[in-house]
Amino acid sequence: MSTHSPGTADRTPLAQRSPEELATYLERQRRAYAALTERGLRLDLTRGKPSTAQLDLSDALLRLPDGVTDADGVDVRNYGGLSGLRELREMFAELLWVDPDQLVAGGSSSLTMMHDVLVQHLLHGGVDSPRPWRDEDKVTFVCPVPGYDRHFTMLASYGIEMLTVPMRGDGPDVDAVESLVRDDPSVKGMWVVPTYANPSGSVVTQEVAGRLAAMPAAAPDFRIFWDNAYALHHLTSNEAKSADILSLASAAGHPHRPVMFASTSKITYAGAGVAFLAASRENVAAYLGHQQFASIGPDKVNQLRHVQFFGSAEGVRQHMVRHREILAPKFAAVDAALTAALGGLGVAEWTRPAGGYFVSLDVLDGCAARVVTLAKEAGIALTPAGASFPHGADPRDRNIRLAPSFPELEEVETAMAGVATCVALAAAERLSDVG
Amino acid sequence: MSTHSPGTADRTPLAQRSPEELATYLERQRRAYAALTERGLRLDLTRGKPSTAQLDLSDALLRLPDGVTDADGVDVRNYGGLSGLRELREMFAELLWVDPDQLVAGGSSSLTMMHDVLVQHLLHGGVDSPRPWRDEDKVTFVCPVPGYDRHFTMLASYGIEMLTVPMRGDGPDVDAVESLVRDDPSVKGMWVVPTYANPSGSVVTQEVAGRLAAMPAAAPDFRIFWDNAYALHHLTSNEAKSADILSLASAAGHPHRPVMFASTSKITYAGAGVAFLAASRENVAAYLGHQQFASIGPDKVNQLRHVQFFGSAEGVRQHMVRHREILAPKFAAVDAALTAALGGLGVAEWTRPAGGYFVSLDVLDGCAARVVTLAKEAGIALTPAGASFPHGADPRDRNIRLAPSFPELEEVETAMAGVATCVALAAAERLSDVG
Repeated sequence: MSTHSPGTADRTPLAQRSPEELATYLERQRRAYAALTERGLRLDLTRGKPSTAQLDLSDALLRLPDGVTDADGVDVRNYGGLSGLRELREMFAELLWVDPDQLVAGGSSSLTMMHDVLVQHLLHGGVDSPRPWRDEDKVTFVCPVPGYDRHFTMLASYGIEMLTVPMRGDGPDVDAVESLVRDDPSVKGMWVVPTYANPSGSVVTQEVAGRLAAMPAAAPDFRIFWDNAYALHHLTSNEAKSADILSLASAAGHPHRPVMFASTSKITYAGAGVAFLAASRENVAAYLGHQQFASIGPDKVNQLRHVQFFGSAEGVRQHMVRHREILAPKFAAVDAALTAALGGLGVAEWTRPAGGYFVSLDVLDGCAARVVTLAKEAGIALTPAGASFPHGADPRDRNIRLAPSFPELEEVETAMAGVATCVALAAAERLSDVG
Repeated sequence: MSTHSPGTADRTPLAQRSPEELATYLERQRRAYAALTERGLRLDLTRGKPSTAQLDLSDALLRLPDGVTDADGVDVRNYGGLSGLRELREMFAELLWVDPDQLVAGGSSSLTMMHDVLVQHLLHGGVDSPRPWRDEDKVTFVCPVPGYDRHFTMLASYGIEMLTVPMRGDGPDVDAVESLVRDDPSVKGMWVVPTYANPSGSVVTQEVAGRLAAMPAAAPDFRIFWDNAYALHHLTSNEAKSADILSLASAAGHPHRPVMFASTSKITYAGAGVAFLAASRENVAAYLGHQQFASIGPDKVNQLRHVQFFGSAEGVRQHMVRHREILAPKFAAVDAALTAALGGLGVAEWTRPAGGYFVSLDVLDGCAARVVTLAKEAGIALTPAGASFPHGADPRDRNIRLAPSFPELEEVETAMAGVATCVALAAAERLSDVG
């Protein structure tokens, strides 16, 4: 398959080339892009969805549970049990490094649990809040960028202001976070995806986690929404261990600061897994204290199904290896396509994550939207430029989130070669001052 | 089995008896109660839970779904589909007399959907609200009593005031409702359980529904939370048809007034069914418009499981007949025990519902808490007196909610004979001015 890429020959950075060389390069990219559009592709790299092959790994769930009582002899088909099945909480407490009685097993969506916690703080306040957040003049969140679009749209839907800080390889820029949080009591919280972040793939180091846990905050009820969505989602055998944020915060005298979320959405079924919340005992009691008015209990049949499917925490880990075997080649294909087409040209940087679901691609400033448009017209759907920023606005218009999990490997290869062509064309246009 | 009841001999109302006759009756009840406590019973009539035999009716669910794609070819295991599977919505739209595109199929709990709608109105307001309810000086709900305790505790948790109106055989006292709603703009909503109400068993008539739909309301965004939890839960072959509140309200010029809720919690599994919301298209769009920030979609695997299990709307109806065969004898046993012990004595009135999950028992004023205490000490757990009233306070202390669904038939018979003894003893005490 020819990618019509700039080829392996000339690796001179585009910005260092003469006007004539650049014109030649631009012309070559235009021809490559024309050829690309003629292929009539229909490919989608937009969302972090598991592929069919990954979902198939969990199809034993479709014939479970075997029996209808939990470890305590309770009939899972009936009402009750707001905090979830004990044996499932024990299994995931081990995986998430928390105590089982600090862990709630809920419904199928961790996003719903995050939303519930946010709404509880808006309408009631937290265990250490002087008043409900809705009664504050202003509520502000710190948002590492690039980040997860659904985190930002949730806040925007309640008019919560968002202050961005850069997401780095070791986590959020903690100097920037500290200075935002220290003096402004309107700063009530922040998002962190600690492990294989969406989309950067960064893993928050022990040191950064410790500083986030210990930093002074003007708001007594400052919250870290610690969305550990990819805690177990390794792409290599070098498995990152998530920082133990609950213990760190407790040791630093801020036990109620973090609320951790996780789920099996990308372990079993994306729409039919089990979500988890972990926090201080007081936070958990407050969460359940409010939640009791909204639910008689989660779907315990599905929880028992998961208990029997995994068998143990080790069973979960082994299951994740099978996901890795499917996912790792796709991530390698993303890197290979970008390297082949763009390596050394100085027009793009991208992450090579050791886990998670995304590659974060930075193109030349002002080119991301153009790349997404070019790709769309060539039949390759990308996440909208800016999606990884609050209000969808990337101030440098350079970041693109690539999600290679859902398409087949060959489709990823085809799509990424096309994306590379679009990046090269947009860069050549920009540097030539045309387009 | 002897119930130590007043027997079939003397049916003179207690209030008409001479002091000597009353003293004799009281003494007989004391002996009966002493005998009751010696039996060491452990019986529970507290919650409206399906019995094990009822849950067993749906155990084919445990081996479903067969296949993982919905009618549109979408993989139900993956993310998406916020409004729920089309074929499940079509099935229940037929059963609930609504249009499929006015119906959302959600997670496992209709209580959660009610809570979501309430929270959306508090934080955003409805499609016709001048402002979020949280920004009003006061928010008040009309609450027919006796009613469902979870409806009231949900409101209380947000400091919403509750004004009670009597629940009658044909629904809420609509004259009282009209006068509360007409002039007070703080009255933003009301609860209605339209079919086989909890706990009265009342069915809202077409006429009452029409008046609720059409009545003038001072609040432009007045909402009827129409909790049709027992729409299909008939105890006789004379199946009540729920009033078509959405059409009535639309015809009356108040299309956004009602929001209907239903679920399969008492059709399949109480903890693992599917919940539904129906409303005007604008209301549904607003609901989903907010909900998109809290969820990527419901558990579609469980929805497909239900589609395949039922097959059709007629399949649901046939399934409910099997529930009726289990439940009807238990309700007959409640009536038989109360009639045998208390018939004609003028110390208790109770409902003989044609559907639903409850019998509402009114004892002499000031006696309900005493009856519950006596029963508890005899090993029979009853719902706390007052639970069917806002803040758990029954101003006349006379109402007791009986829930005979969960225990086995023989247990219902034993428990209800015991309850009747407690009612008789409490009444004799009260009329004798002792105890």
